[in-house]
Amino acid sequence: MSEFKGKFDALCAEFERVLDEYLNAVSLEPSVLDESFRYSLKIGGKRVRPVLMFASAQMLGGKISDVAALAVALEMIHTYSLIHDDLPAMDNDDFRRGQPSSHKKFGEGQAILAGDALLNQAFVICLDECRKGRTYINAAALIAANAGARGMIAGQAADLFYQGKDAGETEYEFIVRNKTAKMIMSAVAVPAYVYGADDNIAALLLEYGKNLGMLFQLTDDMLDVSGEFEKLGKTIGKDEKEKKISAVSVYGAEKCRQMAEHYCELCLKLLAQLPYECSFLEDFTRYVLGRDK
Amino acid sequence: MSEFKGKFDALCAEFERVLDEYLNAVSLEPSVLDESFRYSLKIGGKRVRPVLMFASAQMLGGKISDVAALAVALEMIHTYSLIHDDLPAMDNDDFRRGQPSSHKKFGEGQAILAGDALLNQAFVICLDECRKGRTYINAAALIAANAGARGMIAGQAADLFYQGKDAGETEYEFIVRNKTAKMIMSAVAVPAYVYGADDNIAALLLEYGKNLGMLFQLTDDMLDVSGEFEKLGKTIGKDEKEKKISAVSVYGAEKCRQMAEHYCELCLKLLAQLPYECSFLEDFTRYVLGRDK
Repeated sequence: MSEFKGKFDALCAEFERVLDEYLNAVSLEPSVLDESFRYSLKIGGKRVRPVLMFASAQMLGGKISDVAALAVALEMIHTYSLIHDDLPAMDNDDFRRGQPSSHKKFGEGQAILAGDALLNQAFVICLDECRKGRTYINAAALIAANAGARGMIAGQAADLFYQGKDAGETEYEFIVRNKTAKMIMSAVAVPAYVYGADDNIAALLLEYGKNLGMLFQLTDDMLDVSGEFEKLGKTIGKDEKEKKISAVSVYGAEKCRQMAEHYCELCLKLLAQLPYECSFLEDFTRYVLGRDK
Repeated sequence: MSEFKGKFDALCAEFERVLDEYLNAVSLEPSVLDESFRYSLKIGGKRVRPVLMFASAQMLGGKISDVAALAVALEMIHTYSLIHDDLPAMDNDDFRRGQPSSHKKFGEGQAILAGDALLNQAFVICLDECRKGRTYINAAALIAANAGARGMIAGQAADLFYQGKDAGETEYEFIVRNKTAKMIMSAVAVPAYVYGADDNIAALLLEYGKNLGMLFQLTDDMLDVSGEFEKLGKTIGKDEKEKKISAVSVYGAEKCRQMAEHYCELCLKLLAQLPYECSFLEDFTRYVLGRDK
């Protein structure tokens, strides 16, 4: 596993370099917009989506630079969703990764605008990448579709709608499939689109991303309940544990563990069908399953 | 002027038809997202940006259908900006066009997500249009740039930042140039990009859009002060008049009127340089100048 950690950290460092390069070329007015735009992008985070995208690109025989801009765009979309999620009207989180959340630092109005700006600039980047040709248009369109009203936002709207309501397995699955899994699907499948890989390769990667997303959210929810989140630097929102739908409340802890193992197996089976050396994604999958230990 | 009104209404009706066609093909989950997404798009509004885009396309010898999807995208961006602008943390407007604003109808969280969804789906449309070729990529990139952190959002962030502060002409001009004019620039110049018109044609239309945007905001601010807004179906936010920067507070009513006339003249001069029959845009410009009478 230490080889995996080393590779993960290297890809993560590569992403930070790419992101800094992007941010160094950007200067926004007014200064509050410039600061709030940078703040949430640089506040840290595990960079799961860019790392997955880079690893997938390398697995397919490509280079990080082929998807670097799209990885920045995807992380910007992820970041905007966290800013808006943290707002009082949503999860009401004062902290994000151990730092004040955007609205605590810049005020609610500027936080809303910082989120809007990140989402918009993600598509400025995507549209710029479209000039590289049709495969990039397909990749950018995948990012947009999975982030939007039939993707992540649908999951967020359902998550918010069912807060405090009697939600069951169907609702939980809808939320996670959209809110979490769609962005993971983009991360792993974008390189297949960029390289114009066969449809069955793209389909396998999308299916892998979907199941990895489910696994990711299940173990996230289990970590949440076991109180291990604080150790990872995340501070839980005031009443979040009570009101949010969690795998543990829907399925119970025991079934959660079984389901996580099931999704992990599914992921590994899908990877085994790929005609590529995919040990990093295998290790990543196992890491997600075992991270609460 | 009645011929102008007839043409305006016809282009507006054409846009409603295009928008309905788009919305009829869309079905979102959960239902609260579907409803909030449609609600703000169909709540009315003058459809200034789509009408300008259609008129510009026709002036350049093209068809409405060439830019119909991009007009929907632009109106979706405009609509999301109004939803987020109306939020308590921003302008705190309970009403929009005589109807409850999105957050009053669906709650703040869902309103934030409805705005996010509209912005995101605008770029789903733009990326789909990119498949038509390079000129469409250029047009979509213009929309994204002018809506974003160096366009409309920069203006909104500055507008919010200077609320209640001692803002002068420089600040006011920055706000209007970005918040209002950039979207108008997209509306009139997108067809030039789509048709691959000469650079000087695109430049003239961008400059026209910039000055029309200034004129538009100046007369908006004057209408605001003269209390004529209510007649037009707009309800002013609780303390908006007091705290928001307005041309009237910055320049005084007399200079506002002179400036509006100046921008109107500039617009007409720019149109006169175009090798096209542009009586509709001329009439539109004069209409904006005279609409408080």
